Amino acid sequence: METDAGSAIGVDVGGTKILGAVVDRDGRVVCRERVPTPHDGDERLIAVCDLVASLRAGQRDRCLPIGVGIAGLVDLAGVVRYCPNLDWRDAPVRAALSERLDTPVLVENDAAVAAWGEYRVGAALDATGGALMLTLGTGVGGGLVAGGRLVRGARGFAAEFGHMVLDDEGPRCPCGNRGCLEALCSGTAIGRAAAQMVADGHVAADSPLRAMSDRDGEMVTAAALDGDPTARAVLASAGRWLGIGIASLVNSLDPEVIVLGGGAMHAGDLLIHPATIAYRERVVARRHRVVPPIVRAGLGDDAGVIGAALLAGDERE
Amino acid sequence: METDAGSAIGVDVGGTKILGAVVDRDGRVVCRERVPTPHDGDERLIAVCDLVASLRAGQRDRCLPIGVGIAGLVDLAGVVRYCPNLDWRDAPVRAALSERLDTPVLVENDAAVAAWGEYRVGAALDATGGALMLTLGTGVGGGLVAGGRLVRGARGFAAEFGHMVLDDEGPRCPCGNRGCLEALCSGTAIGRAAAQMVADGHVAADSPLRAMSDRDGEMVTAAALDGDPTARAVLASAGRWLGIGIASLVNSLDPEVIVLGGGAMHAGDLLIHPATIAYRERVVARRHRVVPPIVRAGLGDDAGVIGAALLAGDERE
Repeated sequence: METDAGSAIGVDVGGTKILGAVVDRDGRVVCRERVPTPHDGDERLIAVCDLVASLRAGQRDRCLPIGVGIAGLVDLAGVVRYCPNLDWRDAPVRAALSERLDTPVLVENDAAVAAWGEYRVGAALDATGGALMLTLGTGVGGGLVAGGRLVRGARGFAAEFGHMVLDDEGPRCPCGNRGCLEALCSGTAIGRAAAQMVADGHVAADSPLRAMSDRDGEMVTAAALDGDPTARAVLASAGRWLGIGIASLVNSLDPEVIVLGGGAMHAGDLLIHPATIAYRERVVARRHRVVPPIVRAGLGDDAGVIGAALLAGDERE
Repeated sequence: METDAGSAIGVDVGGTKILGAVVDRDGRVVCRERVPTPHDGDERLIAVCDLVASLRAGQRDRCLPIGVGIAGLVDLAGVVRYCPNLDWRDAPVRAALSERLDTPVLVENDAAVAAWGEYRVGAALDATGGALMLTLGTGVGGGLVAGGRLVRGARGFAAEFGHMVLDDEGPRCPCGNRGCLEALCSGTAIGRAAAQMVADGHVAADSPLRAMSDRDGEMVTAAALDGDPTARAVLASAGRWLGIGIASLVNSLDPEVIVLGGGAMHAGDLLIHPATIAYRERVVARRHRVVPPIVRAGLGDDAGVIGAALLAGDERE
């Protein structure tokens, strides 16, 4: 069956799944496919190529631009320098995919392409003054759009906002440092903080947090939405750190809007409200300026594939 | 006398002095003048205009571009929204100067134009991948160049790196918050930290710090260069915080080079060495990337006037 309305293909390579989609000119997903992420690096490349081949097969135009977002540090040449959750180290993914797919493939950080998606057709649409996005999930990803372009930095490593240091004596981050934004307000960090509260005996006998054998951000959010005071306190603390981080970013970059996405956003105002308070208190000269608003992402789990596809199309033009 | 080689006029309005200069195409100062900064806002405008008139008088071309750097938050319309050390609040300085001087005048933050100067003809020359500058003096100013342009943000307030929050329970900052980069490693912060060491009795009987009635960064630096261990410890701590701040900025922006300027740089390696160590430990994926170097500013106290003049010329073209 030919769907034919597609203008680009986007792929989002995560730690557990690879999502692929054909996206039209307006950023709508025309069709999508999903496969588990293979553990082996070479099998992972083959899985991406098979997914693209399958999506291409449904299109009349077999030469659609292809964009791939990867959960890791990607340099300007499309070499994946480091991934926390995949075994790619200094892997020339762009070259490999471009050769196998016989067309130039765009390869970028996953949070960066998600930010592009939100800027082009999502919550930051029309933010001509620039948009800053934070994706709070297992880790904390970042993306930055300024001057109508994705900001990549000198070598492609810009927007790793998850590794701003907010508390140099804080909890250990997977990156090896302490008190990074990611170590304080990712889903993983929220789960760990709740586990610590239980271990320290600061949790009521009837709290659902006690019964959990393993705790992650999703469980803590569920308990908090159910009214559990410990879970709410954990989210309030994570939200406060998030707000402090956003203030530092706004003082450094002055975007028009801050977009928050990722699984942790299911906590909604339990996270966003304390973040907003901490943020607004710390913006420089806040009484003499417009304080950029914090908004929730609009594209959900599709932000990555939509952004990757649109960016590949935009950069080919 | 007509000097005639000038291509633009730059003015740097600081808390105590106004420096003006005619600058040639290569960023060399052709001639300069300096006056004390009037306390009154309107007199200050007149002083700037008189300085420009005097500099113009020596030039055959009376229509040279004019750029003005001001120690405060300047929005995209050239309105000075807030200055910590001058009484301008929401003052339309660009409009006032442009009218009085009968030509469009560029008005920008002082640290931003200094960064432009270092990028165009100073320590960040040829940093096509972008340059990030920190100016450590009474406060901490910032400037950012990316994609060959000064990064201004949505409303002109970008690059206030001095107000990244590094220690939310740290010393009070003039901005009202706690533990900003400025509150931890400006000259003022260094002086205050030394005073605290004396007050707490952590200072040897023969330390020159004891004899000082008032302490600022310059005095602490002099004592440290003279070998005083307390003064060295204060600079080492300030340097460490500086390095933590630089790491967060590099993880967020990935510039090609970081330029350090301002009076506090007289401390040299006593500040830069601990900063470099703390910075390199905290850059994300440091074993898989080029870590951008920290370099010292090359234009000294002239960075502001040179950058303001060059930026005014560059933007007129």
